[in-house]
Amino acid sequence: MTNSTPAEKIILGIDPGTNILGYGIVRCSGKNDLKLVVLGVIELKKYEDHYLKLKAIYDRVQQLADQYLPDEVAIEAPFYGKNVQSMLKLGRAQGVAMAAVLSRSIPIFEYAPRKIKQAITGSGSASKEQVAAMLKSILGEKDFSQEYLDATDGLAAAICHFFQGATVGASRKASSWSDFVRQNPGRVK
Amino acid sequence: MTNSTPAEKIILGIDPGTNILGYGIVRCSGKNDLKLVVLGVIELKKYEDHYLKLKAIYDRVQQLADQYLPDEVAIEAPFYGKNVQSMLKLGRAQGVAMAAVLSRSIPIFEYAPRKIKQAITGSGSASKEQVAAMLKSILGEKDFSQEYLDATDGLAAAICHFFQGATVGASRKASSWSDFVRQNPGRVK
Repeated sequence: MTNSTPAEKIILGIDPGTNILGYGIVRCSGKNDLKLVVLGVIELKKYEDHYLKLKAIYDRVQQLADQYLPDEVAIEAPFYGKNVQSMLKLGRAQGVAMAAVLSRSIPIFEYAPRKIKQAITGSGSASKEQVAAMLKSILGEKDFSQEYLDATDGLAAAICHFFQGATVGASRKASSWSDFVRQNPGRVK
Repeated sequence: MTNSTPAEKIILGIDPGTNILGYGIVRCSGKNDLKLVVLGVIELKKYEDHYLKLKAIYDRVQQLADQYLPDEVAIEAPFYGKNVQSMLKLGRAQGVAMAAVLSRSIPIFEYAPRKIKQAITGSGSASKEQVAAMLKSILGEKDFSQEYLDATDGLAAAICHFFQGATVGASRKASSWSDFVRQNPGRVK
């Protein structure tokens, strides 16, 4: 049961933070065609109770999986943090998001923030705004609403995953945005 | 839908580690009666794939919730660790275990390892063997099989939760094993 044809693949990218969870869904075809399906955020600050927060992440990610039927999930996953406390909290947020994905038997791929920025902009130290600008260019979108700036990290994870070539076999594998431009000169706006 | 009467409560205690998950289930009544229902471990070392490991934790905890219908879940949760890497991994293991519990809408209570040892033995720095010995005494069990020594941390969390008084309203609240002994001189073996 999938709403993508064999030549297509739907990738859900998520950036599970402890205050906000950003997500983006793209549909990609064998012709290196990328189309934005949805971009959004799950606000988590409003939940004072720690477990309500974790439950919200779990429920909403499962809901996204059921609504958009992604074939693969890409997660932005920092492996280093300021301190053990924040890493434990981040690990829990990642864990409940992963549980929601695994409960639907969807494969998960993780990418470090630096790797994602590198794949999208060519620089591992690009700013959030630079990443957003490149995402707009890649997807041919006029503009992302300001409120969705936090969602772009999730979207960037999905597109990074696409560039890594772990997508449909028929497509030429682009390992970064610069490869993609080289292979698709006509598509770059 | 529960298999416990109003005067009873079933507590599932779990110690979600990254290599082994220990669990213990107790049934407690309003008379400060504690009975061991089951003690077990989920071996996680055999899963080389990180996601298979997380999926195993999620599936097995959900299975325990569905089979034994606990009213409350107590989790042993260290808040400090050696380094950020191990805390991220531990956070993920805790997160998927919590997701399984939250998916069944069962309330979760967390206790630090030191707090659990303190409640069971009276000393926050008690050894695993000392905790196991006290658990045997509390439950009137002759012996725990050696293979279940890792499961005792989960069981200890369940009994610590019982002592914290967050259990059935009708019971006198014992806040530690020493209180329990004082209140139930005849029950101590």
